[in-house]
Amino acid sequence: MVRQIVAAWMLSAAFGLAASCVAAYAQTDAAADSNEARIEDLVTASHILANEGILDSFGHATVRSATDPSHFFMPRAMPPALVTRADIVEVDLDCKPVMPNAPRLNGERYIHCEVYKARSDVQSVIHTHDLAVIPFGLTNTPLRPVLAQAGFLPKETPLFEVRDADGSASERGMLVLNAFLGKALAQKLGNNPVVLMRGHGETVVGRSVKEAAVRTIYTNIDARAQTAAMSFGSPFVVLDDAELAAYAKEERPDRPWDNYKQRMLKAQGSLR
Amino acid sequence: MVRQIVAAWMLSAAFGLAASCVAAYAQTDAAADSNEARIEDLVTASHILANEGILDSFGHATVRSATDPSHFFMPRAMPPALVTRADIVEVDLDCKPVMPNAPRLNGERYIHCEVYKARSDVQSVIHTHDLAVIPFGLTNTPLRPVLAQAGFLPKETPLFEVRDADGSASERGMLVLNAFLGKALAQKLGNNPVVLMRGHGETVVGRSVKEAAVRTIYTNIDARAQTAAMSFGSPFVVLDDAELAAYAKEERPDRPWDNYKQRMLKAQGSLR
Amino acid sequence: MVRQIVAAWMLSAAFGLAASCVAAYAQTDAAADSNEARIEDLVTASHILANEGILDSFGHATVRSATDPSHFFMPRAMPPALVTRADIVEVDLDCKPVMPNAPRLNGERYIHCEVYKARSDVQSVIHTHDLAVIPFGLTNTPLRPVLAQAGFLPKETPLFEVRDADGSASERGMLVLNAFLGKALAQKLGNNPVVLMRGHGETVVGRSVKEAAVRTIYTNIDARAQTAAMSFGSPFVVLDDAELAAYAKEERPDRPWDNYKQRMLKAQGSLR
Amino acid sequence: MVRQIVAAWMLSAAFGLAASCVAAYAQTDAAADSNEARIEDLVTASHILANEGILDSFGHATVRSATDPSHFFMPRAMPPALVTRADIVEVDLDCKPVMPNAPRLNGERYIHCEVYKARSDVQSVIHTHDLAVIPFGLTNTPLRPVLAQAGFLPKETPLFEVRDADGSASERGMLVLNAFLGKALAQKLGNNPVVLMRGHGETVVGRSVKEAAVRTIYTNIDARAQTAAMSFGSPFVVLDDAELAAYAKEERPDRPWDNYKQRMLKAQGSLR
Repeated sequence: MVRQIVAAWMLSAAFGLAASCVAAYAQTDAAADSNEARIEDLVTASHILANEGILDSFGHATVRSATDPSHFFMPRAMPPALVTRADIVEVDLDCKPVMPNAPRLNGERYIHCEVYKARSDVQSVIHTHDLAVIPFGLTNTPLRPVLAQAGFLPKETPLFEVRDADGSASERGMLVLNAFLGKALAQKLGNNPVVLMRGHGETVVGRSVKEAAVRTIYTNIDARAQTAAMSFGSPFVVLDDAELAAYAKEERPDRPWDNYKQRMLKAQGSLR
Repeated sequence: MVRQIVAAWMLSAAFGLAASCVAAYAQTDAAADSNEARIEDLVTASHILANEGILDSFGHATVRSATDPSHFFMPRAMPPALVTRADIVEVDLDCKPVMPNAPRLNGERYIHCEVYKARSDVQSVIHTHDLAVIPFGLTNTPLRPVLAQAGFLPKETPLFEVRDADGSASERGMLVLNAFLGKALAQKLGNNPVVLMRGHGETVVGRSVKEAAVRTIYTNIDARAQTAAMSFGSPFVVLDDAELAAYAKEERPDRPWDNYKQRMLKAQGSLR
Repeated sequence: MVRQIVAAWMLSAAFGLAASCVAAYAQTDAAADSNEARIEDLVTASHILANEGILDSFGHATVRSATDPSHFFMPRAMPPALVTRADIVEVDLDCKPVMPNAPRLNGERYIHCEVYKARSDVQSVIHTHDLAVIPFGLTNTPLRPVLAQAGFLPKETPLFEVRDADGSASERGMLVLNAFLGKALAQKLGNNPVVLMRGHGETVVGRSVKEAAVRTIYTNIDARAQTAAMSFGSPFVVLDDAELAAYAKEERPDRPWDNYKQRMLKAQGSLR
Repeated sequence: MVRQIVAAWMLSAAFGLAASCVAAYAQTDAAADSNEARIEDLVTASHILANEGILDSFGHATVRSATDPSHFFMPRAMPPALVTRADIVEVDLDCKPVMPNAPRLNGERYIHCEVYKARSDVQSVIHTHDLAVIPFGLTNTPLRPVLAQAGFLPKETPLFEVRDADGSASERGMLVLNAFLGKALAQKLGNNPVVLMRGHGETVVGRSVKEAAVRTIYTNIDARAQTAAMSFGSPFVVLDDAELAAYAKEERPDRPWDNYKQRMLKAQGSLR
């Protein structure tokens, strides 16, 4: 079994090496990047984030098409832990499936369409109901980068309050079920990597599925560290400009991706 | 193994589809609903809630009979994690087993009898000792809906204080061991989906086993989110009328049920 | 696998039935009680409490001899998770092994010798480093019965401060390594079921291994509930005299014992 | 399976016996100590600490060479959970690999080089991102020895603030990526067993891999106990001089090492 893990690690390390030079697909050569490779990462990211307890029954991860930037790939409406290749649907930026007779999609797909429209740099979008970050939105407490590994976070992560976006009280709800709300969320996200959503969760973006997934994990860990530090009742230190700048030059998702992927495969029993 | 999960998911998705149109058995066609189907869900719900750490050694889930609304099904006195079809007993609303020579039942079965008597809309009752909700009862802190997925909760969940119900100090205890206390609990529940029980746990109801089980899980998650938000020491936002109304139109337990069921089956080793 | 669990459950239920009429070995008929049966429970309790994260690398459980009340059985110095029948040593109340060439025993065996000497009603002693109860001792915060299942606890659990017991500053430490300190601990325990030990853990006693083990588990759960309630910053309700009296008449460890035993066996892989 | 654990335990107990007389390699006879034995412990420690959730994707453990005290062994840049014998690289105290064509090493290897240079008593260094200790550094809260098993900690564990060490704002970051910062960290460590690193984690040292690993685990447990005690809002008791002195005479890592090793092997499936 240790031998199996090693073999799996060596394989993923080999692939990881190719990817480790580049954080964004834009910089990848054609051979390493393809829709199938992106979709494989998407399925893996869904399983990793479910295994870490960050994606629940309802969250969703997506990836932009490598061949048509006005399309993206998204699982049909189902729990992310159970997604397979066969569940992936190609969707356009009007949030309509490309193929006829597509299965039912998540009602909140507008999160993804509008973020891809607004941010050409974004290749992957992940929407979670992460319990570690929800208290920040509920109490309007700024989430801040306090960990060396969370230097991708801005000094204050923006918070989306759906009530501010949608004034029509009669039909108002918590979910981002139309383009109007999707646009409002994308606007609140701005150029940031993460936007919190009050009583709901967060949306994280990245230049690749791996980057978005690893940012989602370290947003969770940073939120837990800040929560614990705040419980001590004294001020806590936040990463400063020099530290954030140093991080930006080093952001590489490969090592944590490999680590969390092996952990997920072991939990699934695939490495036994 | 991934293939096995997929197969299991597809099967459950197929059944789920039929159920996803209806939250209540009342609306189900005769083919999909039967006592055996209800009992199968009851056993599954017991295992799911034990696997999530919400049902301990003593809690119990029940379901009303599909053929005789004055009867319901309940496991004999035993830990819910270990319940099987053979342990299920049919009970009438006077809390007596229908068949002679029935095995010993839980002393607290009066919770179920009296709630079924008082609430004809209720098809399933779940009594837990959930540690996440107990602090609310211990401190008389209102549990509130703070999460998008907990919109079934009222703005303030009622709290049952057994001391108020039973003035007879000499024989007083913590448990609901007779019809008098069961009636008092049902009265405190009123038309709500959940009633907290001081120092003890909670009782949750639903229009189906799936709905009651998923409400039990999201009561747990909502309690954890509110607890964390309160620890921040600032006010927190509660779902408002429009948000609760929007949720009510959308409540569907199938996706989380499928997710937590697969998780339980994997933990049991049934999907290896 | 479900079938295997059921079979194991039925077996243990059959044995459990015999025991469920009696909380104390004193009341058991000779057939059901024997040194071998007690030792089997001792090994099981060690594994259960390790599996629940309550016994760490150093804690220890013991049981009094059924045939000679001035002897008891104790594992040799080793982690409780790994104890087997072959590791059990018979010890007298002077804390000396009965057989020559016995393996090395825990330095803290004096906890057990002195409690068995002081309390003829006690048949089993468990010493843990339970992290859930340690904060109570560190801060001199009274641990109180707040849960329906923790009615065995007194309104205030006593706390042993080793510094008060041992005035000899030069050789003083944290551990109960001699009869003098063991006696002081037993005196602080008094007629209670539990005594907290500052910076160290707790010692729990029972009228059987099952009772001591289940009390250890519910002391942990009660401590977690009280800790959470205190974090809310408002007063919390404690079980009153009537509630404690009602509990005392009902204390039966069998159902939780069966539940935690199956959980441990499943974690060990014995039920796969 | 119980039989397998027992067998594994007996083997490790046999080896453990040899080691249990000595905390430091300096005192070990040549037969029991060798570079291969040290490297085997290093791989095991990496897996143990990952299994306990203390080492994440980035931390690293190292051990000094038994044959050349100016060399040490370190895994190449990879997640510690996945390290095998083949990933271990011999490094000199200038932080250069001894063999040509060595694989890429961790950027933070300077932590290890400079601590080995400064502390001839140190045989093993472990750098973690332990979430339980990070809040202490973030809030400049002294970590103190509150547990009987954490008596190796000084009354106040020093804290390394990387900003104080490196005044060159333009290139400043969070990581210890050069000899200058490594020296500053080693200086802050002084003669202590642990140094906290703000927003980053900690570095722990020991007279053997086992001692460093077990100290890392009990630093984690002590931090959790102190955090919980502080949440109670009242003063907490710290080990005093006599208690720390008593601990120093007794520090032996073998029993927890055996316990955590078995736990890791079981989690890996090696004991099924």
